[in-house]
Amino acid sequence: MTSFPELDATPVLVVDTDVLDRNLTRMAESAAARGLALRPHVKTHKCVEIARRQLDAGARGLTVATVSEAEVFADAGADDLFVAYPLWVDAARGARLRALAGRVRLTVGIESAAGARALATHAGTGAGVLVEIDSGHHRTGVPPERAGDVATAARDAGLDVVGIFTFPGHSYGPGVPPRVAAEESAALTAAAASLRAAGTEPSVISGGSSPTALIEVRTDATELRPGVYVFGDAQQLELGAITERDIALSALATVVSARDDVLVLDAGSKILGADRAPWATGYGRILGIPDARIVALSEHHATVRWPTESPRPGLGDRVRVVPNHACNAVNLVDELVAVSGDVVVGKWAVAARGCNT
Amino acid sequence: MTSFPELDATPVLVVDTDVLDRNLTRMAESAAARGLALRPHVKTHKCVEIARRQLDAGARGLTVATVSEAEVFADAGADDLFVAYPLWVDAARGARLRALAGRVRLTVGIESAAGARALATHAGTGAGVLVEIDSGHHRTGVPPERAGDVATAARDAGLDVVGIFTFPGHSYGPGVPPRVAAEESAALTAAAASLRAAGTEPSVISGGSSPTALIEVRTDATELRPGVYVFGDAQQLELGAITERDIALSALATVVSARDDVLVLDAGSKILGADRAPWATGYGRILGIPDARIVALSEHHATVRWPTESPRPGLGDRVRVVPNHACNAVNLVDELVAVSGDVVVGKWAVAARGCNT
Repeated sequence: MTSFPELDATPVLVVDTDVLDRNLTRMAESAAARGLALRPHVKTHKCVEIARRQLDAGARGLTVATVSEAEVFADAGADDLFVAYPLWVDAARGARLRALAGRVRLTVGIESAAGARALATHAGTGAGVLVEIDSGHHRTGVPPERAGDVATAARDAGLDVVGIFTFPGHSYGPGVPPRVAAEESAALTAAAASLRAAGTEPSVISGGSSPTALIEVRTDATELRPGVYVFGDAQQLELGAITERDIALSALATVVSARDDVLVLDAGSKILGADRAPWATGYGRILGIPDARIVALSEHHATVRWPTESPRPGLGDRVRVVPNHACNAVNLVDELVAVSGDVVVGKWAVAARGCNT
Repeated sequence: MTSFPELDATPVLVVDTDVLDRNLTRMAESAAARGLALRPHVKTHKCVEIARRQLDAGARGLTVATVSEAEVFADAGADDLFVAYPLWVDAARGARLRALAGRVRLTVGIESAAGARALATHAGTGAGVLVEIDSGHHRTGVPPERAGDVATAARDAGLDVVGIFTFPGHSYGPGVPPRVAAEESAALTAAAASLRAAGTEPSVISGGSSPTALIEVRTDATELRPGVYVFGDAQQLELGAITERDIALSALATVVSARDDVLVLDAGSKILGADRAPWATGYGRILGIPDARIVALSEHHATVRWPTESPRPGLGDRVRVVPNHACNAVNLVDELVAVSGDVVVGKWAVAARGCNT
């Protein structure tokens, strides 16, 4: 495995641009073949260069999680942004939304009558709204049959109700994505009916998570918003949503300690993130060594149990670690190292890193 | 509870400077009363203003985790730095260490003969070394009785062996800190004997984690290196190492969704970190509401089960969330908001944020 000798310090996050482009193309083609608009979630990469590639591959617009992410991508020239979050809007955030709506096509999430009124009061009515529904993840969003009530309240507040959205986050479990994709589709269908019964024809019916986005189901959805698919990560791998050759993001790390079958790497939670789902095999995976297990993680140490049948790297050797959750890993660094094969081809700023507000 | 209306967006990390100063003073006084030098680990705060307060309160020098953290604090005027990590030194890192050793009193960790030789070859002999020993955490470091072997190899490579260090990270478990403090002390004593038998008198015998640093044990240690004690966090609270009035760091967050006994806040893993030890009650704690539980965490959502006996905040209200692990939370933001009581008194840059190399 290449160790990128021209990179003179580890740990750093490396993006394999060949894999990245293949991932972008596959999702774009799958969405197009099903007649679905693709609006990728850029919280995963926070990176202008990758957003441009997504738009060039046919994305309709971009999804963001926060107003500050929207501001970064608007500054970079994106002209169609959806804030997929049930924003609570006060005067300060309202002023920022008003400014954004003046320069891009802006849509934001709402999930309550009170939230709709706060949005209209403080941000005006320049942004379209999508009503968030709960398709089974039980985080935010109203039950599908209540979407019409929220839409009516929003319309009464003067807002332009464009449609509905959901995030089927309960797709993050082994073996469940096909069932969750069906639940999501049923929930979107029920919510669309609720909107129509309340007198609003939804033009956008938006769903999709990376584990479910490529699953073909009968759906009323018009739009997909996957995020992680650009990079893949150890969670997607262990869910069976991807294979190792779909993984574009890894941390290049150095072996700093070795004893018996255990190695310690210099990549810890400050570059991989501390995410570990209950069903995960460890704190990430070692690229190319499927039976290695990251059994402990500190801020600057990954403790790896190395399989006896694989040649063991020595002190100072480099290996590549796949984070469990790409979105949180990328948010820890200021730049991504773009590579093609063995060659470093660029450094990409994580332009929206830390944009939490 | 104050909601800091002059802060116009959430989530942000807030430092209560009154609690911070009390924490600094207590640790400094405890170390002084026991005749121990205090060399706090600045990876927790990465913040020049807080390091200055630690030095003003009597700290002997600073501990860092990486060479790039050392560079930031040297630039800020610190003149005595210990890199508490078994560095693997190649030509590029060696040149950086050589430059650092030319302008500050520098000490670094080693744990192998090969590591010692690589250090001497690439960085020269300007930095002192401490041999890392394993006091039971089983991450890095040699067994105490082998410290002398590593010291001899280092001396043969021309290095100045100053002493030994350990991190008793196995103190992070409910009820175990007193036992671990005793184990750490025994390991340091055994390692010091091993060094002496190899002909090196250790002038620095360094230990200490925040859960064990205030525990009085009979010890041969000369130095303590706690980090988290400045802020406290939900882990220290749940370990019983501190009480809620010792918590200086929290994320100011807004209620964005409310149903029945569940609230959703806008603080998620991108400001709190995703750390959750197996023994933790949740993904952090709500300041002032000990029976609230953060039952789920996404990147921008904390799902909180609110106790029925406590008045429930409404949409748009602000609450303060205590991260599980302060070090990883601070590394997610560019600045900390310093407050005293209800008043914002400053913004402190997280100067060494993202310094992983």
